[in-house]
Amino acid sequence: MGKTSTGNFFEDFKVGQAFRHATPRTLTEADAALNTALYGMRFAINSSDVFARSLGLPRAPLDDLLVFHVVIAKTVPDISMNAVANLGYAEFRWGVPVYPGDTLSVSSIVLGLRETSDRKAGVVWVRSTGINQDGDMVLDYVRWVMVHKRDQAAPVAPAVVPRTAPAVAPADLIVPEGLSLAAYDDGAAGSSYRWEDYAAGEHLDHVSGYTLEDSDHMFSTRLYQNNAWVHFDAVRGKTTRFGRRLAYGGHVISLARSLSFNGLANGFRLAAFNAGSHVGPTFGGDTIYAWSEVLETASLPGRTDVGALRVRTVAAKNQGCGDWPGKQADGKYHPAVVLDLDYWLLMPRR
Amino acid sequence: MGKTSTGNFFEDFKVGQAFRHATPRTLTEADAALNTALYGMRFAINSSDVFARSLGLPRAPLDDLLVFHVVIAKTVPDISMNAVANLGYAEFRWGVPVYPGDTLSVSSIVLGLRETSDRKAGVVWVRSTGINQDGDMVLDYVRWVMVHKRDQAAPVAPAVVPRTAPAVAPADLIVPEGLSLAAYDDGAAGSSYRWEDYAAGEHLDHVSGYTLEDSDHMFSTRLYQNNAWVHFDAVRGKTTRFGRRLAYGGHVISLARSLSFNGLANGFRLAAFNAGSHVGPTFGGDTIYAWSEVLETASLPGRTDVGALRVRTVAAKNQGCGDWPGKQADGKYHPAVVLDLDYWLLMPRR
Amino acid sequence: MGKTSTGNFFEDFKVGQAFRHATPRTLTEADAALNTALYGMRFAINSSDVFARSLGLPRAPLDDLLVFHVVIAKTVPDISMNAVANLGYAEFRWGVPVYPGDTLSVSSIVLGLRETSDRKAGVVWVRSTGINQDGDMVLDYVRWVMVHKRDQAAPVAPAVVPRTAPAVAPADLIVPEGLSLAAYDDGAAGSSYRWEDYAAGEHLDHVSGYTLEDSDHMFSTRLYQNNAWVHFDAVRGKTTRFGRRLAYGGHVISLARSLSFNGLANGFRLAAFNAGSHVGPTFGGDTIYAWSEVLETASLPGRTDVGALRVRTVAAKNQGCGDWPGKQADGKYHPAVVLDLDYWLLMPRR
Repeated sequence: MGKTSTGNFFEDFKVGQAFRHATPRTLTEADAALNTALYGMRFAINSSDVFARSLGLPRAPLDDLLVFHVVIAKTVPDISMNAVANLGYAEFRWGVPVYPGDTLSVSSIVLGLRETSDRKAGVVWVRSTGINQDGDMVLDYVRWVMVHKRDQAAPVAPAVVPRTAPAVAPADLIVPEGLSLAAYDDGAAGSSYRWEDYAAGEHLDHVSGYTLEDSDHMFSTRLYQNNAWVHFDAVRGKTTRFGRRLAYGGHVISLARSLSFNGLANGFRLAAFNAGSHVGPTFGGDTIYAWSEVLETASLPGRTDVGALRVRTVAAKNQGCGDWPGKQADGKYHPAVVLDLDYWLLMPRR
Repeated sequence: MGKTSTGNFFEDFKVGQAFRHATPRTLTEADAALNTALYGMRFAINSSDVFARSLGLPRAPLDDLLVFHVVIAKTVPDISMNAVANLGYAEFRWGVPVYPGDTLSVSSIVLGLRETSDRKAGVVWVRSTGINQDGDMVLDYVRWVMVHKRDQAAPVAPAVVPRTAPAVAPADLIVPEGLSLAAYDDGAAGSSYRWEDYAAGEHLDHVSGYTLEDSDHMFSTRLYQNNAWVHFDAVRGKTTRFGRRLAYGGHVISLARSLSFNGLANGFRLAAFNAGSHVGPTFGGDTIYAWSEVLETASLPGRTDVGALRVRTVAAKNQGCGDWPGKQADGKYHPAVVLDLDYWLLMPRR
Repeated sequence: MGKTSTGNFFEDFKVGQAFRHATPRTLTEADAALNTALYGMRFAINSSDVFARSLGLPRAPLDDLLVFHVVIAKTVPDISMNAVANLGYAEFRWGVPVYPGDTLSVSSIVLGLRETSDRKAGVVWVRSTGINQDGDMVLDYVRWVMVHKRDQAAPVAPAVVPRTAPAVAPADLIVPEGLSLAAYDDGAAGSSYRWEDYAAGEHLDHVSGYTLEDSDHMFSTRLYQNNAWVHFDAVRGKTTRFGRRLAYGGHVISLARSLSFNGLANGFRLAAFNAGSHVGPTFGGDTIYAWSEVLETASLPGRTDVGALRVRTVAAKNQGCGDWPGKQADGKYHPAVVLDLDYWLLMPRR
């Protein structure tokens, strides 16, 4: 291919290999507005400078998931251009908030490699870290992804499977410096339910649905400079097992987060993902619904103004979530489910 | 539903009830750019800081209709989640201009309620007011909307129908403070026609048409954080009388305003709506055309540089407006008409 | 038509006629973000303020093609509302970089006119110049476009065909003031290939493809305030030879530029177009691929840090470019080709 790249294949990776990913990205107010326009996000902290200042922040921070989308996009050319599927996330924490004007850079290190039994592909574990222009960590996570082999016969090293934590401990969640919720305004935020009002086991049907067009998911994915061809190329999409373009899985995460406003409006910050699975593919024309279950509530060391809520949000397509579609008796997912995400939210206490 | 909301139904409203709507929104340069990208707006005052400064403003103000879209969107979760149809507007005035960096908040009060004769729904009149971070009014209007009843048998109070003014008087139109049109540049604005050149009865065919895709109207409506499900959910849309998603009526107003540039390029500011009706539904794939009629010209107290033009703009779909589709001899609208809007424009005088 | 315009037809133009085009446009960070979102651009200089500052610039300049799109859009209402086809570009040079906050204005002068032999249309040559708020040239070019006659029988003046240079000389390319590539960071830029690594005759297949939806090209074209109806009106589009809406040719240029990142990531600035042809039409649903050929390398007077690469990029639709579709033995283009562009890129030297 000369100077052009078709990306790395499974046999190109080595455990311990480090990548400094290309194209640092300065995020701006425009990314904030586009995040609203793409997902209909309504969280006050990301919508209003006045609201954010009332919490001790300098201005409205960018949506936590926007930071995720930009960080993961940077890793695509090196890590997942030839992905079969994105398998999971662990030890996934947000660090300092990102504000308009901040410039993000991303690096990764290969933690593990394991060829599939059919030798056609392999699982690559990477730890990726996004930092701002001051070197402060904005997002750090382990992700594993199945990547095609270029040559099925290529020899590979013995499997190395890293051990990752099953969940992020509440004490490890990062509360933004300077944040104080004393003046938190429920009316502006859109909910009077605070941390104390939620209990483990509680279910929330987020009611509404968002139909996703091909134009929409391509727009978001280009914005993040994610160049994974599966999202953009309808001609080549015909040659895949799906027979068409595939929506970026992160787009569905953001839609589910936006839908979750109805019931979790005071979950003002994503602090961590404990685990996440893109259970099924989403395509242009699909309509996304979501429901959530409160898994756990946790106080945070030294804080009486903010607590943590561990939530599982499940997104399903083309049917409402009033009957809580999830894992079935046989251990398989209901066929409508496309996302199963386990995460920590920060929420104001009374 | 526990902590999630399905919105208010007709029987939930009381005359005098006040709402402070959620999610204050800081508008930025990005909203200005998106307003251009969504509607193709070409008014110089909103496009160029240099042009705006030549008129005595600090910089390019945001499009007046963008302010409307954001304000009305804030009212949706409380007022019109269960709307059957948006029926009308009155006493609708813009106040201080909105600039990038301003944060808008919105409140409403219920002015009137009247159940429909079939008892399935009722009309809700509200006065809604948007203010900026300094408490200055940016938009104030009365709107009435037909809202479903949750329970057809629910008893309701006797009807209260507020009296609204048939039009905004020219003396009540608000001219932005500091505005001076002495240096108004017709060439930059794109028209040499000024206030004196228009006469009541004059008709203008705005010539061009804009085709609207589902992706487009959903994008704009999410940007405003308008969460009315009828615009977003193709699955549930199949259960409605239209059998599909419905474009946000405000999207059509902005398209009509954009088309009206051809003939009304110097109508640099919307000062008021006298009345407005979303005559018919618009769907993805429809093409919007528009024509206008000058209803009245009015001088403004103490101003020789700016006058007011009362205009009626009618938008039709899927056919040009060279034959002025509007109300027919039988009093019904031509079936292509989707919007009939009566408003005041500010325009430079000679 | 009274006060509304249907644009100029061929017989309306005179050689020497000057136009000062309407609607000056302040560009912002939002235009930068939208440029990324519309095309998936990944050039570091336009993505990162930190990267741009490391090259001696005050911040990330706006994408050179974005400047082109805005400048040409301003000329549409006066020059090409009634275009049959956009035929070519020459003597096309970018001047000072454009930064968020800059306001662009555009003027044109008619250089030549030649009626077609069937007398139904004619070719109009114009020189168009975009300037910023300080009067500095940002883009200057000659373009020729075939424009319908309103009245086939209208008499026209004898043909005047201007002579344009076959290419821009390397010595005439404009290197932004203050630019210094001593600290150019290949890792951030995404490529270790510098000017010395390219040789005339080298071919690059840019591998990926972007599918273009109607929503996408209309969005970009409205953003630039380009009001050419052929891009927007599906109803009237049915009456054209294509039977549908036509994508703005500039959208395809930007997609090709974005695809060319894979192989030309260090081509950080477009300095000039030598020639360009929109070989075929592009419609919503088409997938764009591209390949490039290095035509020439040139050093720049007084510069050891930056050189110029003359590149020909060809875009094709609905098929990959691994077999270099271009002009065939019979002198005709391969039917998949939609764009053939000959331009100068600036690139860091070792």
